[in-house]
Amino acid sequence: MKHARIRHQGVIHSVTVEEDNAVRLADGRLLAEDAVEWLPPATGSMFALGLNYADHAAELSFKAPTEPLAFIKSPGTYTGHNQVTWRPDNVAYMHYECELVAVIGKPARNVKREDALAYLAGYTVCNDYAIRDYLENYYRPNLRVKNRDATTPVGPWIVDASDVADPSRLKLRTWVNGELKQEGTTADMIFDIPYLIEYFSSFMTLQPGDMIATGTPEGLADVVPGDEVVVEVEGVGRLVNRIISEGEFFARKNEA
Amino acid sequence: MKHARIRHQGVIHSVTVEEDNAVRLADGRLLAEDAVEWLPPATGSMFALGLNYADHAAELSFKAPTEPLAFIKSPGTYTGHNQVTWRPDNVAYMHYECELVAVIGKPARNVKREDALAYLAGYTVCNDYAIRDYLENYYRPNLRVKNRDATTPVGPWIVDASDVADPSRLKLRTWVNGELKQEGTTADMIFDIPYLIEYFSSFMTLQPGDMIATGTPEGLADVVPGDEVVVEVEGVGRLVNRIISEGEFFARKNEA
Repeated sequence: MKHARIRHQGVIHSVTVEEDNAVRLADGRLLAEDAVEWLPPATGSMFALGLNYADHAAELSFKAPTEPLAFIKSPGTYTGHNQVTWRPDNVAYMHYECELVAVIGKPARNVKREDALAYLAGYTVCNDYAIRDYLENYYRPNLRVKNRDATTPVGPWIVDASDVADPSRLKLRTWVNGELKQEGTTADMIFDIPYLIEYFSSFMTLQPGDMIATGTPEGLADVVPGDEVVVEVEGVGRLVNRIISEGEFFARKNEA
Repeated sequence: MKHARIRHQGVIHSVTVEEDNAVRLADGRLLAEDAVEWLPPATGSMFALGLNYADHAAELSFKAPTEPLAFIKSPGTYTGHNQVTWRPDNVAYMHYECELVAVIGKPARNVKREDALAYLAGYTVCNDYAIRDYLENYYRPNLRVKNRDATTPVGPWIVDASDVADPSRLKLRTWVNGELKQEGTTADMIFDIPYLIEYFSSFMTLQPGDMIATGTPEGLADVVPGDEVVVEVEGVGRLVNRIISEGEFFARKNEA
């Protein structure tokens, strides 16, 4: 089953997702995909991985890490399916990152990897955009790279963990304006989801609604206002996002 | 005025703080400091600064940064006044960090430094403990250094911004078991609060309840289970915290 959060006529609803991505409200009403505002399907903390695919680490001229490289994103960065993201003025390079996201379902502390998948509610998808201009900083990633408002589309929904037979064999793909740009498989993760749950839960408690964004494979490219970016994880979901300019984004925000 | 969040008989209350740190509930009842469970007074995102005092950067053999070095802490790390924090087994060095925290009062986006203080609700104090063993990681700070459960006491309260005449002239002090170990002044910050609000708000919207933990001066030392650590920012607050072992901490947590 697929679970989402949407806003409709000013009210936030928890919904299930049915054929053609129509959403079913608790009162039984069925609304078309385009008739609702899609929100991030989870709202906990997001623990994001860097350089968790060997091919992507090589693409950036990094050695594969020996410990997960993790950072935290604040909730202001999350946005939903079919929403817009913005490219700052005067930056040289902004790229998408198609990622499988594991969503925690119950508190996880000191969980062994063989038990780890039982702590998941399910899976979703995110597009963890980055601004490459600001890499240099002792504390990394610089928040200017990874923590701008509404630059991390998440969703469209959470698919139940029981509906994903093997999260380590899923194809990831990104299209920009219809052209396939990024293609990989979760089989190439350096640290897989059971390992990551064991790792994080060895020093902190993962809470229901927390998300682990598991990193992205190679195939990055610059994107600009006007681009439509689609990220898809096979069997999980397909997340659509359009990029607009900084000026347009904040003009809309001020109107809203 | 001072505002806090406390739990009393299982119920969370927003309170004001009066003489001898007694707390006043909305229904008028007055409860003694020791009769209540103090919670973190704000629950938004925490944006924390590293190496924001030149003397502390020198103490760690770093050059002073040219851009704020900021990282995010997830809310599971926050705890309250008079609560316990734990030292992991088998680590070599855990130190306190006395910090002034600026608490945002209204959404701040593209705020100039001369207007910045008007966006604050007020100030609080935090003790941003760190485990020094895990410094090496490409993404820094390693979450094992700075993101363990309940290792960041925050509070006891928020003092109204209007009650702090000049946040750039406040004395910071830390005592361990009554012995003064750390002493500094916010005058030595490399990036002061107006600068930090201008900086963060230039690329993201600071939200009400978000916190900026502004870094710590020199004077760090190892702390161990049994230690009582008091951090104080003059005119803001005095935050007491006791350290227990990992085993005791999680045994208590499992009981609760």
